[in-house]
Amino acid sequence: MNGAQALIRTFVDAGVDVCFMNPGTSEMHFVHALDDVPEMRSVLALFEGVATGAADGYARMADRPAAVLLHLGPGLGNGLANLHNARRAKTPVVNVVGDHATYHAVYDAPLQSDIASIARGVSGWIRSSTTAESVARDGADAVAAACGPPGQVATLILPADVCWLDSPGPVGPSDRQAPAAVPADRIEAVAAVLRGDEPAALLLGGTTLRADGLRTATGITEATGTKLLAETFPARLERGAGIPSVDRLAYLAEFAQMQLDGLRHLVVVDTSSPVSFFAYPEKASDLVPEGCVVHVLAAPDEDAVGALAALAEELGASPSTAGAPADRPELPTGSLDAQSVASALGALLPEGAVVVDEGNTAGLFVSGATAGAPPHDWLCLTGGSIGYGAPAATGAAVAAAGRKVINLEADGSAMYTLQALWTQAREGLDVTTVILNNGSYAVLNMELDRVGAGTAGPRAKEMLDIPGLDFVSLATGMGVPASRATTAEEFATQLGRALATEGPALVEAVLPPTL
Amino acid sequence: MNGAQALIRTFVDAGVDVCFMNPGTSEMHFVHALDDVPEMRSVLALFEGVATGAADGYARMADRPAAVLLHLGPGLGNGLANLHNARRAKTPVVNVVGDHATYHAVYDAPLQSDIASIARGVSGWIRSSTTAESVARDGADAVAAACGPPGQVATLILPADVCWLDSPGPVGPSDRQAPAAVPADRIEAVAAVLRGDEPAALLLGGTTLRADGLRTATGITEATGTKLLAETFPARLERGAGIPSVDRLAYLAEFAQMQLDGLRHLVVVDTSSPVSFFAYPEKASDLVPEGCVVHVLAAPDEDAVGALAALAEELGASPSTAGAPADRPELPTGSLDAQSVASALGALLPEGAVVVDEGNTAGLFVSGATAGAPPHDWLCLTGGSIGYGAPAATGAAVAAAGRKVINLEADGSAMYTLQALWTQAREGLDVTTVILNNGSYAVLNMELDRVGAGTAGPRAKEMLDIPGLDFVSLATGMGVPASRATTAEEFATQLGRALATEGPALVEAVLPPTL
Repeated sequence: MNGAQALIRTFVDAGVDVCFMNPGTSEMHFVHALDDVPEMRSVLALFEGVATGAADGYARMADRPAAVLLHLGPGLGNGLANLHNARRAKTPVVNVVGDHATYHAVYDAPLQSDIASIARGVSGWIRSSTTAESVARDGADAVAAACGPPGQVATLILPADVCWLDSPGPVGPSDRQAPAAVPADRIEAVAAVLRGDEPAALLLGGTTLRADGLRTATGITEATGTKLLAETFPARLERGAGIPSVDRLAYLAEFAQMQLDGLRHLVVVDTSSPVSFFAYPEKASDLVPEGCVVHVLAAPDEDAVGALAALAEELGASPSTAGAPADRPELPTGSLDAQSVASALGALLPEGAVVVDEGNTAGLFVSGATAGAPPHDWLCLTGGSIGYGAPAATGAAVAAAGRKVINLEADGSAMYTLQALWTQAREGLDVTTVILNNGSYAVLNMELDRVGAGTAGPRAKEMLDIPGLDFVSLATGMGVPASRATTAEEFATQLGRALATEGPALVEAVLPPTL
Repeated sequence: MNGAQALIRTFVDAGVDVCFMNPGTSEMHFVHALDDVPEMRSVLALFEGVATGAADGYARMADRPAAVLLHLGPGLGNGLANLHNARRAKTPVVNVVGDHATYHAVYDAPLQSDIASIARGVSGWIRSSTTAESVARDGADAVAAACGPPGQVATLILPADVCWLDSPGPVGPSDRQAPAAVPADRIEAVAAVLRGDEPAALLLGGTTLRADGLRTATGITEATGTKLLAETFPARLERGAGIPSVDRLAYLAEFAQMQLDGLRHLVVVDTSSPVSFFAYPEKASDLVPEGCVVHVLAAPDEDAVGALAALAEELGASPSTAGAPADRPELPTGSLDAQSVASALGALLPEGAVVVDEGNTAGLFVSGATAGAPPHDWLCLTGGSIGYGAPAATGAAVAAAGRKVINLEADGSAMYTLQALWTQAREGLDVTTVILNNGSYAVLNMELDRVGAGTAGPRAKEMLDIPGLDFVSLATGMGVPASRATTAEEFATQLGRALATEGPALVEAVLPPTL
């Protein structure tokens, strides 16, 4: 048994049995070993950002990590943006980066690169495996590290000779850390705040945005009059009819400040204190109102759901029985725009759907229109690096077989990682991609105004326009059936057909250039 | 005048008047300032790897750097693979990476990232600009640093507030370093070796592979009986009828060792001593034969072309008047395969063409078939990170207006950065892309055998097959006219039509799955 075989067997024994990959020569022993460990499902991507984004989407739905296999520093570079998003989502990822054989590094061959330096910013854990004797334990440690808490990217640098040399065999899983319990005095202190008269809000994030956490938190707000908010871009939010609804903090600082206005206490649970996504001249970076005290109920390495339950108990609050009312919009008619796209999605969203939301400005109304649809999951772009949607949908579909995945995808964002469609076709994944094509980086047109540089000239505006993309051709070229809608009726018909058919499909919604 | 305006004006004054970009919110003041400096040509890419690869291709043809504008750490990550290739090509690149405003970093907003850590491995120079007062000088220094010698990636991290705050204005170019002259004693020592009886070879790289350097070096070999070789993957090689031809060192170590067999002296000029691209079990990493002494005539920061001339003078050798004979293959007929593709290219290559070669295994015969075609330039994948071809062709076409750029592109490699086609369409660039579609990562199928892991199973082989890509649809979807050829006649006809028409076009050559 060689190191690669031992490593893959160790991964499988530790519960990591999917690997999204884009390998090269230095990974050929790993690839060869796939036939020796049939429990490992290997999923090929044509671009590394697809593999890393798929691992993010997979773990958000599976609640356990996938592995990724990348080719040296440049392959890691290509996968870095979606590892950045995974880091911000606190997603566990076992990020295996193949490297030259240990003895080959001194020759500075063309692909020699400093992998650890590239990996550092996105990884909570990095180790370079140096021998075939140790690689199995390194792999087991990587899985445990990835699981956290909180979940994180664990990067295992894997030299080629470590794969090909003889190994003593696989090892059992390494010990995992349980989330730390939140101390009682902190629970009591927060309870005292919420019992008081001063305006307060709970800001939920991370693990608390599943139905259980939402019921507990909503129960607390019902008992105390506390306001309830969710972080702006949750990794995974359970929502829909029967599940307590929660307003997300707005992306635009101006709106977020309105949501937070007047608060004297902000209790953050498994998320960060709110800050502006970007800096703007003359605008605040810290969005917490003056005079408002931030209380951390549970940090990301603590048991946030348990802390909410303890807080509810301390306050005598039962889990809420309230939930969003079942309510769908009518199927839209007439012109196709952001609103009619949203209505069609609200009317047609299947129960148990997984919505991967990278709709950006054009997807603005979809959240509202689907609030009363049957229960579903909502996955957001957590790190701001666009090009996460199609890959994450790919991984989510691998994890959530039997559920329909819907990828709301803005045209500009789609073009970073559209190669994901090929993987969806090859694996027969049940993903409906909705391209919101307004021929523009519309969010940047908005930001160009917001940064206060004055009226933009034609050359600046040209840099934000992206006309001429035909997503039906692009999807067809990768084996995904596709159609184009230019009216609300066409869109509803095409979306309905895609949702009713198992397997990948793409619907391009041709939208007006502005909201 | 704000910092962004001063910076762009400084770039233009220093000779950097093209910027390949994929900006985001933190770069909006830079984008806004484009209208104030009309001499700066801004070229939008839909993916950062297109922008960085275009800057590489541009500078190889223009002999001066372009700027790149990227969006924070994730944008840099997306552009990293082609910066890696540029680094290996010793290409000057002014790599501007936008960042959050200086005061915003402490808030750890979603896109906060350690840009310098990601940039380190590919950059010969990194500076974070910290004030609007200093940004113009930082930009001028970045241009000078990029120019080397040798050419390198100079990364300027550009916080948003440095762009928007008031600046005292542009500055003149910073001093550039001239390449150091090679000392006479080194010239004499190498001359003594070449005058001797022991088998010797000149291994040329970098700046010596233009026609002048080749004539000088060939003159030396004619006078001394020295063997002449070029590095495996030149950044830019001038070749064709009338230019002295030179064999490139083979990619496969086994063949390179045959080329070097029996040598007692290897004189390297602006390149490295040959090493195996990858490590393989039981195979050597260092390809220099036992008992062969390596002499460095000129290092990359030295005047290699001047050193060759001095060596020739020392040896009494005149520049060679020999050159490859004008000779084209017949237009091919019958089945379409790697050989007939090569013949068609040899028959039809226009004078002054720029060939960007990422044909990999399927392009193996093209170099031979075009050896006697009219003079042209040949640009190789220097760093081994695939996905360089379409971007580099894009940049080369911007630099070499009036010349036809031909991108030989393997199917697998094409899919990393195919978004370059959109930029080619938008800018009306004169690029003919030839997709060599064998439905496979054929080089990895070969490497899977070479790494000695034994017979590969079906799951391993499945990870190296990439069927189902329709490049005609993909190109059409980005606005590039395209056609598909399945016979040699069809290919010759379609290639001829594309070459005869100005503007972007794509010809997909459907090849058998193996060589």
